[in-house]
Amino acid sequence: MRIVVIHGPNLNLLGRREPEIYGRVTLAEVDERLAARARDLGSELATFQSNHEGALIDRIQAMVLASPGDDGLIINPGGYTHTSVALRDAIAAVARPAWEVHLSDPDRREAFRHVSLIRDVCTGCVKGRGADGYVTALEALVAHLRADEEA
Amino acid sequence: MRIVVIHGPNLNLLGRREPEIYGRVTLAEVDERLAARARDLGSELATFQSNHEGALIDRIQAMVLASPGDDGLIINPGGYTHTSVALRDAIAAVARPAWEVHLSDPDRREAFRHVSLIRDVCTGCVKGRGADGYVTALEALVAHLRADEEA
Amino acid sequence: MRIVVIHGPNLNLLGRREPEIYGRVTLAEVDERLAARARDLGSELATFQSNHEGALIDRIQAMVLASPGDDGLIINPGGYTHTSVALRDAIAAVARPAWEVHLSDPDRREAFRHVSLIRDVCTGCVKGRGADGYVTALEALVAHLRADEEA
Amino acid sequence: MRIVVIHGPNLNLLGRREPEIYGRVTLAEVDERLAARARDLGSELATFQSNHEGALIDRIQAMVLASPGDDGLIINPGGYTHTSVALRDAIAAVARPAWEVHLSDPDRREAFRHVSLIRDVCTGCVKGRGADGYVTALEALVAHLRADEEA
Amino acid sequence: MRIVVIHGPNLNLLGRREPEIYGRVTLAEVDERLAARARDLGSELATFQSNHEGALIDRIQAMVLASPGDDGLIINPGGYTHTSVALRDAIAAVARPAWEVHLSDPDRREAFRHVSLIRDVCTGCVKGRGADGYVTALEALVAHLRADEEA
Amino acid sequence: MRIVVIHGPNLNLLGRREPEIYGRVTLAEVDERLAARARDLGSELATFQSNHEGALIDRIQAMVLASPGDDGLIINPGGYTHTSVALRDAIAAVARPAWEVHLSDPDRREAFRHVSLIRDVCTGCVKGRGADGYVTALEALVAHLRADEEA
Amino acid sequence: MRIVVIHGPNLNLLGRREPEIYGRVTLAEVDERLAARARDLGSELATFQSNHEGALIDRIQAMVLASPGDDGLIINPGGYTHTSVALRDAIAAVARPAWEVHLSDPDRREAFRHVSLIRDVCTGCVKGRGADGYVTALEALVAHLRADEEA
Amino acid sequence: MRIVVIHGPNLNLLGRREPEIYGRVTLAEVDERLAARARDLGSELATFQSNHEGALIDRIQAMVLASPGDDGLIINPGGYTHTSVALRDAIAAVARPAWEVHLSDPDRREAFRHVSLIRDVCTGCVKGRGADGYVTALEALVAHLRADEEA
Amino acid sequence: MRIVVIHGPNLNLLGRREPEIYGRVTLAEVDERLAARARDLGSELATFQSNHEGALIDRIQAMVLASPGDDGLIINPGGYTHTSVALRDAIAAVARPAWEVHLSDPDRREAFRHVSLIRDVCTGCVKGRGADGYVTALEALVAHLRADEEA
Amino acid sequence: MRIVVIHGPNLNLLGRREPEIYGRVTLAEVDERLAARARDLGSELATFQSNHEGALIDRIQAMVLASPGDDGLIINPGGYTHTSVALRDAIAAVARPAWEVHLSDPDRREAFRHVSLIRDVCTGCVKGRGADGYVTALEALVAHLRADEEA
Amino acid sequence: MRIVVIHGPNLNLLGRREPEIYGRVTLAEVDERLAARARDLGSELATFQSNHEGALIDRIQAMVLASPGDDGLIINPGGYTHTSVALRDAIAAVARPAWEVHLSDPDRREAFRHVSLIRDVCTGCVKGRGADGYVTALEALVAHLRADEEA
Amino acid sequence: MRIVVIHGPNLNLLGRREPEIYGRVTLAEVDERLAARARDLGSELATFQSNHEGALIDRIQAMVLASPGDDGLIINPGGYTHTSVALRDAIAAVARPAWEVHLSDPDRREAFRHVSLIRDVCTGCVKGRGADGYVTALEALVAHLRADEEA
Repeated sequence: MRIVVIHGPNLNLLGRREPEIYGRVTLAEVDERLAARARDLGSELATFQSNHEGALIDRIQAMVLASPGDDGLIINPGGYTHTSVALRDAIAAVARPAWEVHLSDPDRREAFRHVSLIRDVCTGCVKGRGADGYVTALEALVAHLRADEEA
Repeated sequence: MRIVVIHGPNLNLLGRREPEIYGRVTLAEVDERLAARARDLGSELATFQSNHEGALIDRIQAMVLASPGDDGLIINPGGYTHTSVALRDAIAAVARPAWEVHLSDPDRREAFRHVSLIRDVCTGCVKGRGADGYVTALEALVAHLRADEEA
Repeated sequence: MRIVVIHGPNLNLLGRREPEIYGRVTLAEVDERLAARARDLGSELATFQSNHEGALIDRIQAMVLASPGDDGLIINPGGYTHTSVALRDAIAAVARPAWEVHLSDPDRREAFRHVSLIRDVCTGCVKGRGADGYVTALEALVAHLRADEEA
Repeated sequence: MRIVVIHGPNLNLLGRREPEIYGRVTLAEVDERLAARARDLGSELATFQSNHEGALIDRIQAMVLASPGDDGLIINPGGYTHTSVALRDAIAAVARPAWEVHLSDPDRREAFRHVSLIRDVCTGCVKGRGADGYVTALEALVAHLRADEEA
Repeated sequence: MRIVVIHGPNLNLLGRREPEIYGRVTLAEVDERLAARARDLGSELATFQSNHEGALIDRIQAMVLASPGDDGLIINPGGYTHTSVALRDAIAAVARPAWEVHLSDPDRREAFRHVSLIRDVCTGCVKGRGADGYVTALEALVAHLRADEEA
Repeated sequence: MRIVVIHGPNLNLLGRREPEIYGRVTLAEVDERLAARARDLGSELATFQSNHEGALIDRIQAMVLASPGDDGLIINPGGYTHTSVALRDAIAAVARPAWEVHLSDPDRREAFRHVSLIRDVCTGCVKGRGADGYVTALEALVAHLRADEEA
Repeated sequence: MRIVVIHGPNLNLLGRREPEIYGRVTLAEVDERLAARARDLGSELATFQSNHEGALIDRIQAMVLASPGDDGLIINPGGYTHTSVALRDAIAAVARPAWEVHLSDPDRREAFRHVSLIRDVCTGCVKGRGADGYVTALEALVAHLRADEEA
Repeated sequence: MRIVVIHGPNLNLLGRREPEIYGRVTLAEVDERLAARARDLGSELATFQSNHEGALIDRIQAMVLASPGDDGLIINPGGYTHTSVALRDAIAAVARPAWEVHLSDPDRREAFRHVSLIRDVCTGCVKGRGADGYVTALEALVAHLRADEEA
Repeated sequence: MRIVVIHGPNLNLLGRREPEIYGRVTLAEVDERLAARARDLGSELATFQSNHEGALIDRIQAMVLASPGDDGLIINPGGYTHTSVALRDAIAAVARPAWEVHLSDPDRREAFRHVSLIRDVCTGCVKGRGADGYVTALEALVAHLRADEEA
Repeated sequence: MRIVVIHGPNLNLLGRREPEIYGRVTLAEVDERLAARARDLGSELATFQSNHEGALIDRIQAMVLASPGDDGLIINPGGYTHTSVALRDAIAAVARPAWEVHLSDPDRREAFRHVSLIRDVCTGCVKGRGADGYVTALEALVAHLRADEEA
Repeated sequence: MRIVVIHGPNLNLLGRREPEIYGRVTLAEVDERLAARARDLGSELATFQSNHEGALIDRIQAMVLASPGDDGLIINPGGYTHTSVALRDAIAAVARPAWEVHLSDPDRREAFRHVSLIRDVCTGCVKGRGADGYVTALEALVAHLRADEEA
Repeated sequence: MRIVVIHGPNLNLLGRREPEIYGRVTLAEVDERLAARARDLGSELATFQSNHEGALIDRIQAMVLASPGDDGLIINPGGYTHTSVALRDAIAAVARPAWEVHLSDPDRREAFRHVSLIRDVCTGCVKGRGADGYVTALEALVAHLRADEEA
């Protein structure tokens, strides 16, 4: 079981970007923690970060084109959450279970962050829990895939 | 560790209500399945259903008033999702981790179901997964509480 | 053939509440007149009034749970007309022919009364005809049920 | 007692127009069935169809100008329901009881069909019942007129 | 100098239509009074009423096609004021000075009457003055045409 | 002179609910302070709290049904302020002078708290003054009732 | 018969302000031409210009306070057209016939100029006719006042 | 293969109507040019112009009622583009391939021209190309019909 | 203790301005009555009226600049209620307890009167009580200031 | 004559992406069919697909920078249709005739697909015709270019 | 070279008004600092403050009427930024380069401060930099005027 | 002191793209002129252009990752101004003073250009001044950085 973890724009700056909003943990630390939890759950991670909308779409498409062993998707689309129909279309196109994660809670920030174009093509959403949110999404996604396997 | 599971209005009709939208599983079956999973996770469930907005608020308040051992909340507020500021205020008031669950995906139904007044006082949301969604929320919530305990 | 007649919040004050809008007839008089007409039509009435949204939902659900001989529904949801998704869901859930009645015409009053959340789960609507509107709805509903019986 | 039945634009195509929405009954069949029911009720029908907004207004005005024996109005304004202030003004001007009928339920179709400019100058509305809706409107209207006669 | 006076839908019912809004003067009386004033001013009137949007457009077009001696336009478009882009286009197309007249003041009535699609292709507007408004428009239009002649 | 004081949903949690917004005074303390001030003013209080919209409506109706000596109303409708047409209708129905009180200032919080459905059926409003606001409302209401008595 | 002519903010710059929009005639020239026409019509003018909203209100109020012989009002409120409820209230308060004049056509300019807060307290409006528009308004207003005198 | 070409309101004035927007070619010239191109393509044209919304609907309906050899539709609905649900319903009802043509580009003109009620019942749209746009639509439509024939 | 009472635009016309809305009492009478009540309460009044937005701001600022003994503010901003951010900023800037008073109830009048730009910088609001509303505000404000003094 | 055909994001998945919406034909098959038709018409194609908004803009710019023999543009911008001002600016910048193509009809899907930011910089649009739509656009574009050549 | 610096309403309170938003520097100190910088740049300042919208307009107009040596404008319109079309018209009318300055950043405050009616008649805007923003605007404006002089 | 100058999509076409809007100067010429001015001011420039949103974000991030000597930012985000939350987040993340520049004035163009998602994370904005605007921004930014250095 392999889970793709996609971090969108500006998440590579984690730890040094507006820490009063996003915290001081770096993306490497988030990924390490997530990888450890994945090992516990007997699953594998493939992580990817880009500031390019097109590169994020390419990586999502790779789930069916180049890397068909990818079973599920965890995505924090950063600023593209609110503006990218193309990203949404990619998630819908690959037809894999997906979870949306946000470090802070976009619903408690500026009005233009209250719309998520990907919310209704994802199974679940965790937000405002910092790095813990990624772990929650991972556990939920693994459970989801196990349930589908058993069914 | 005790989790309160609250089912809002019309969920008592589950299994016989618009089965093309909500499926044929009954609420008793959902609750049984959830209880089994809770036992596996070493946690306890307290389930509650009502069609009365005030009764749902009373039960949420009981988490701090009458039943302080209640650690977390799973809630499917049904039609009150979209209209109840009072329910939202109750969830915020008790300050316990909460997950929002929907059997179908309200974001894919009528426009008046696209707003959730409780979304930003909950940590996460699962929707469109039928009864599986409750299990996912339970697992995420238990993990969340364990993480907080350890911290 | 039994018809459930549900009067929503504040209708128990009929006759003494803002008579320039709602008229001077009391709810007892409306119910008597309606019962007389029901007898003429060879049908039976079950009337119910409550100020509690949850109690109204409970009574609608009873049409399939406790009282399956209830064939159709006449409802004046009062102020809940404009705000209750849960009430709408209950009407849809029981899948019985329903008519919406209003004593005054909400479309000619304040803007927040121009939306009816139940309108598209009802077959018809009568408004602005005072107590006569209930009679019209009763006749239409009986005819509707007879037609379905014959079909 | 004479009831005017007005069918708006495209209703002459009934039976051959998008049958998955409007059904397979023709307008002639609707009118026949309605006429039979009118005879039962001891009333007379005058039916009229046009695709011309102005012709529909002329016919409504005729209720007070050329044909003062017309007592009530049943109207399915088709696409003009949502766009014609002039039609609404005509119905208000003749000051006769009126019922709005729709074969399908416009409130469950595209957003531009959710507004009815004539709704608040009509006493009642029936929709989503196919040809049965006309019969319901006829019965309600005859009852309404009888009640006014007796009063 | 000839002025075309166009009365839109339902104005033929003037005097008998909702007199609490529109008054008790008939259209014939309005036209007579207007004709008298036109004679005083040394101008000629051509009056026209129709309930048909297309017929109103035909008559406006006639100002350049069939009746090029028509110098100016006074129009009360009734309910088409708020909905007819085609009527607006016709007024713009003939490029004659035009005045908009309303017996009552649409800006003080329902919200859907607050938009006038012809307002910005007319030079002026008089409203809420009953039949006097037509006289005012006539005088203004004659003065306007005289000024243009002299220039 | 008797004043009814109604506290809406979640106000029973006062003192332990989000104290950074609502302060640390309990509802019992608010009520005691208010009762003391009422005694000074020679008036009597009847206080009531419920999380149930219907129960709040029942208590307001009791002002004319069961307890006609109730002269005025002070109400903090909590989350129902923004969503309850039925509560508004009840206040309008009993036709007693009413004051709206809020501990915090809803106009400085989330956008969905900026609408008050009861504001225009109340004489006055005090907000953002904590428990002092209730005292202000009491004094204003007693003065108002005295003025009416004298008139 | 005395007519008050009020020019709002920036109209004192007429002739040198954005001549491609407002033309090259100065305000003095407009006033002279208007005065000549007033003399022809046997009426008297009182003209006033200010950039101060309060001063414009003071002058309008003077029609009933200091200068009760003022019979009618012609006003070009400039930029206050779109923003001043206070100006509107003043016009309504003095209860004199009033005409709104604009040199250019605000309905053909930026969206924020499409709303006129005074339109529904005026009898008529002339726009887009440059200085001629004032003359038209004067003639209409004198005719209006004569008609009222005779009535 | 026969194509119906329908010109809506005011298009009969082409060549003399606001030539800076619509150009100087007359409708007869457009039709001639289109007929020539139709002959080249081995197809036949039936052209129709009216200012009456109802007449346009009648002609569209004739495609299935009176003139079933009509294979496709080219329509420039003029001002009805933006306001006519009835016209849209007619196009949908006859279920023939249709193209929308505009001489100028309504999306670059006033905001009320930016909505096309027929756009989603047409296969394609050409705009802002003057008379050439009709030719393009004809060629596309003939190709479309040939493709369907061959399929 | 000194209270500043500010009357906004057009309130100087009180008693002769639209008496069906504002009543027949003059501003002098309101001020006298208020002064009498102030004497009873052992406080002093400073009253001010202007039609000039800037003058109202100057007077509010004087509370901290020229007249620091001014303890609280009662303001009826008239038409500036709905349009003046500058007035709001002035009230916030002086940081004195303030009450908003309206003679009629703006929430029951035109839609553009439903917004109050000062509401959230005031402690309370009284409306629709005519001159009594000023007295209520005075009593509330004096009580408020006494409570602050004692604290 | 050379036509550039640009396929936007996710179109590379054609045939395997949501086939109930987009059909089972692959992009290669679309391109082959289009190339064949281009050969028939004596024109040449240059096709390009990318998921990167910037890459699409680069390719459009190449029409004037690197590849000036490109005469026209056919573009299916996929999800960027609704969100990319930059893409629109690129199309406007190269000033070549352009056609917008969509396989399904975005106007019949979710509301966020109803806006096309490129519609008013294209000459025409074909949608809902699957791969046939590209052929139609090609034919229309070749005809358009031939017409311009001849002119 | 002379620059006019205009401070709008409430800026005279700078230093004592809500210092957590506006800082503790007084307007005199801002003006001194600005004058020093102006001397360095070889330019002259004319500063003006008023709470009166009309007085601000008068001063702007003086740039072309009374004081034609004024070359550029720096304006902080305070609360009038969001509400004054008349101020905007004045800036446009004098046709001098203008810069908008705000001490705090209105785009980060309440929604009603997010619109600037003068933004599109100014060349630039500086905000959220306190008194430094004025200096920046001064330098930009002097550079701008020098560039125009040289051209 | 080093300033990063970022030109967004389509700016590489400057001089040949819609010259009636953007002028005839090329980007190379803008950059040369800017570099000359930077040398005068004793600062250094780093210029960058891309049509790729992600590449623009990468370059902005480089200010803190790869190129920490970059002190300030001048950015003309072209079409991304109105749609890119990710770009805005990048500017906020690097926490360097930034100025927004536009060659034309987007506030005077189409409505979709009136929103700037980066405006409130920039210190200032210059628009509608062509290439001069970049120079103004450079000077303002250098002054800003000098002031911060001195502080």
